[in-house]
Amino acid sequence: MADSELPTRPKPEETPAAAAAPAEGAEASKSASKNAAKKAAKEKAKAEKAAARAAQEKAQAAAAAADDTAKDLYGKLPESEDVIAATRFSDISDEHYEKEVTLVARVDNARVQSAKLAFLMLRQQGQKLQAVIALAEPISRQMIKYTGGLNVNSIVQVTGIIKKPAVPISSATLSNHEIHIRKVYMISEAAQMLPMQVKDAERPPPETSEEGFEVGEDGAPIVTLKTRLDNRVLDLQTETSQAITWISSGVAELFAEYMIKSGSRWIFTPKLVGAATEGGSNVFEVKYFKKNAYLAQSPQLYKQMCIAGDMESVFEIAPVFRAEDSNTHRHLTEFAGLDFEKTFRGHYHEVLEFAENLLVFILSQLKERYADKIAIIQKSYPKAGDFKLPKDGKALRLNYMDGVALLKEAGVDVSEQERFENDFTTAMEKQLGQIIRDKYDTDFYVLDKFPMAVRPFYTKACPEDPRFSNSYDFFMRGEEIMSGAQRIHDIKELEESMVAKGLNPNQEGFEDYLSAFRQGCPPHAGGGLGLNRIVMFFLGLPNVRLASLFPRDPQRLRP
Amino acid sequence: MADSELPTRPKPEETPAAAAAPAEGAEASKSASKNAAKKAAKEKAKAEKAAARAAQEKAQAAAAAADDTAKDLYGKLPESEDVIAATRFSDISDEHYEKEVTLVARVDNARVQSAKLAFLMLRQQGQKLQAVIALAEPISRQMIKYTGGLNVNSIVQVTGIIKKPAVPISSATLSNHEIHIRKVYMISEAAQMLPMQVKDAERPPPETSEEGFEVGEDGAPIVTLKTRLDNRVLDLQTETSQAITWISSGVAELFAEYMIKSGSRWIFTPKLVGAATEGGSNVFEVKYFKKNAYLAQSPQLYKQMCIAGDMESVFEIAPVFRAEDSNTHRHLTEFAGLDFEKTFRGHYHEVLEFAENLLVFILSQLKERYADKIAIIQKSYPKAGDFKLPKDGKALRLNYMDGVALLKEAGVDVSEQERFENDFTTAMEKQLGQIIRDKYDTDFYVLDKFPMAVRPFYTKACPEDPRFSNSYDFFMRGEEIMSGAQRIHDIKELEESMVAKGLNPNQEGFEDYLSAFRQGCPPHAGGGLGLNRIVMFFLGLPNVRLASLFPRDPQRLRP
Repeated sequence: MADSELPTRPKPEETPAAAAAPAEGAEASKSASKNAAKKAAKEKAKAEKAAARAAQEKAQAAAAAADDTAKDLYGKLPESEDVIAATRFSDISDEHYEKEVTLVARVDNARVQSAKLAFLMLRQQGQKLQAVIALAEPISRQMIKYTGGLNVNSIVQVTGIIKKPAVPISSATLSNHEIHIRKVYMISEAAQMLPMQVKDAERPPPETSEEGFEVGEDGAPIVTLKTRLDNRVLDLQTETSQAITWISSGVAELFAEYMIKSGSRWIFTPKLVGAATEGGSNVFEVKYFKKNAYLAQSPQLYKQMCIAGDMESVFEIAPVFRAEDSNTHRHLTEFAGLDFEKTFRGHYHEVLEFAENLLVFILSQLKERYADKIAIIQKSYPKAGDFKLPKDGKALRLNYMDGVALLKEAGVDVSEQERFENDFTTAMEKQLGQIIRDKYDTDFYVLDKFPMAVRPFYTKACPEDPRFSNSYDFFMRGEEIMSGAQRIHDIKELEESMVAKGLNPNQEGFEDYLSAFRQGCPPHAGGGLGLNRIVMFFLGLPNVRLASLFPRDPQRLRP
Repeated sequence: MADSELPTRPKPEETPAAAAAPAEGAEASKSASKNAAKKAAKEKAKAEKAAARAAQEKAQAAAAAADDTAKDLYGKLPESEDVIAATRFSDISDEHYEKEVTLVARVDNARVQSAKLAFLMLRQQGQKLQAVIALAEPISRQMIKYTGGLNVNSIVQVTGIIKKPAVPISSATLSNHEIHIRKVYMISEAAQMLPMQVKDAERPPPETSEEGFEVGEDGAPIVTLKTRLDNRVLDLQTETSQAITWISSGVAELFAEYMIKSGSRWIFTPKLVGAATEGGSNVFEVKYFKKNAYLAQSPQLYKQMCIAGDMESVFEIAPVFRAEDSNTHRHLTEFAGLDFEKTFRGHYHEVLEFAENLLVFILSQLKERYADKIAIIQKSYPKAGDFKLPKDGKALRLNYMDGVALLKEAGVDVSEQERFENDFTTAMEKQLGQIIRDKYDTDFYVLDKFPMAVRPFYTKACPEDPRFSNSYDFFMRGEEIMSGAQRIHDIKELEESMVAKGLNPNQEGFEDYLSAFRQGCPPHAGGGLGLNRIVMFFLGLPNVRLASLFPRDPQRLRP
């Protein structure tokens, strides 16, 4: 099939047929926004699918019978077909012009333009490439009909010639390339009706907790967050989701890389624990044979027991469980925790500096290694690319009271904070984030020396002023991503601190933890990071659920 | 203090005083083997500790009053003391002879030889170094008494001169070095009475489920596994435990390294799931607000949903929960899972080969990077160093039926296996491991093509012979460390397979999983490894609990 055969065809996004696709989606939204309609749609889809399959089979049989010139060039992948190495979209360059390639991709859109011409939009991990099929020996009318009628989201193997389109295809990621189809085989067929279109989930979700769709300014449907999360597998297929999941992967990788390089040991502490030692009510209860167990709210006590076990520096990457009934944009009941704990020689600031450098490493390397992914995310979330890191590569560290003073200067009522019994409110934290961005030109900073009253019992009090503690929080864009501290390592001090916090050191469950200190433990400090929050705030996403593969909150236990 | 001042002193292990230490332990064992005695010992320890502290304080005060020439050289670390970089035991070499160093270490043993001479055995991450203190200006009798009376397991900061001992000190790891003390300060004091001595936990535990101690052939006490695990923080301080936890860390690191290098994405799938889809009875139930949730028995269904979500290659490192009431040497109710899932183009053997290379990489790199740790473990567990890898760096792959034939040849009754309805028994697996070691000279191998009857519903049947399946197990020393397979990616085939296995595709909880396939999914395969088992079988440890930081089994929820 020569290029000259297709001289003046319109770009698919400009044709009436292409414009019809979003309208279909919008129509679907009206019914989908009602709960009951969804099930009906599924039943219908099931029936339609069966019908479609039968029709397809019949058509294929008919085609074969009619001595279709192209009958071996499309349909079911022939058993005998040799496995051809598939070219990846991301590898396609100008060097491929006029060359034959084989691709494996999803059908993002398919339509028959005429009996002689059909178009596919192909999609691979969110990237899009246009495919064209036109009547010319041996391509038959039947093959064109088959191709243009492919169910959206099916996975196909396409062989064809890469051409330069007459006009760049603005709706494709690879706008200067298209493939002219010679063969098209089905690898995995999608149902005819999908609960949502992947392309409708590419833009940020509207601010609603409803399910269904809203119509964007351009008239195209935008899927709500609820419907996206209900159909997370489809939602993961968007270019933006693909890029976000790479950033998540990157945060874990960079954390592990830094910790390993520092000589730290990777640990796996139990998530099933015998007692709810860390804080009564926010813990999930588990039926454990004939006993009760609980899900660890953090590896805190176990990390410290590893330090008491002479491990010197440890880190863990593991789920953290919080039974908090918080239905906010930044709370999950299960999230990926990045924890570390380290001994120090002289002062806990040795560990604090280590942690600051860890975060600067992660955030700066994300920018460096994932620049292409960030650029993709920025198309939907403009803040993704503007995260400010300190210019000199050294984290900004202020004391809690410096933060109080900055807020006071800005006219915020901080009288509660000056009594050292209350932490900042979320609103204050955000305000402080903005003040610090304006003043210090950074979105990442550290507050040290929090009031003792707002920290857990194992936190070391500040020796110079016991109203404060040797503890710190890390912030990104004014929101907390890490809490940490020097821990009490002296058994007497620890028991006194427990009593001061209203805890009973003789309570069941504390025995093993306290023994660790009774048997000698070196001075140490550490911290716990939330991976999903790092991703969320780094990219400026509006909701932490967008930074979790299959988010869990008080309302959501599926998919 | 010159070397010449200590010419003919006996080595501590040869003196009556040193010999007394194990005897004390053995005596303790008689009472400790009774449950009630343990609590009494603790109460006693508490009282003794208070008394000891008072006595110590009194002694120090008295010493100061008596114008102790050494009064600033020992006791509580002075506030003014500058932080001196501490030398690590592992860095001490012959170049340190006659040089002053500062060390931070635990007291492994302490004794007063005479009013003029005392010895410490110092311990750092299991390594041991002898310290000597002798009367000579400005060292005082009081300082010698203090040093020799230090509570075992206390953490001290010692400054002194490294000397070459007259005779190598066989009980020390650093047998050709000792430190002659000039200053000794307390960093963290241990209680006077410990539930077990770290040095008594260095040897493999005796084969008993009792708590307490047994007496070894040499008359020294050996701590039972139960008592070691009950006191896991002390147990982690042994040289062997230190090395084993490094191997665990190494397995995770090498797995992540290989997966990342291959272009795979690190994922975090939920452990709280809404339905017990993977197999009814062996799942832990969780109270989830007003609903019930379950702990994921594996990330299997979610890994596959990520593949359906176009992620192509994913891996996860996360806890796996099994509510099996199995009280064996190799079962845990919570363990560290290493999971991966990948798409392939032509044949599932692409993924199988990837996994084989992954394991060969992990096992060979463990040998290379952790040779020093393996050598340490080998002192207690002689098999640790003899794990045989295939010479050509390529995994040995046999079919299940080849395994059956090998067993048959060896005279084992495999008639049940030849009916394709039963998997190998554990005894058969071990026997086959020995046969393969003898015949092929490898402790790592793969069995492919397991009978379909013994695999889960999502396993792809073998197209050539549906009695078998495209599934594989990996073995180390004849014990399974990984299970994997090609998964069914066609929705119709999947639903049929569920029905064939007695499952209802319309059962609540399967909806999201099945939708993933209904919406198109590429061919894929994967596997799940147990980190703790890899460590156990690689090192030839007798019990998987030795390869878990804080093991969980039906009887054990603490520490």
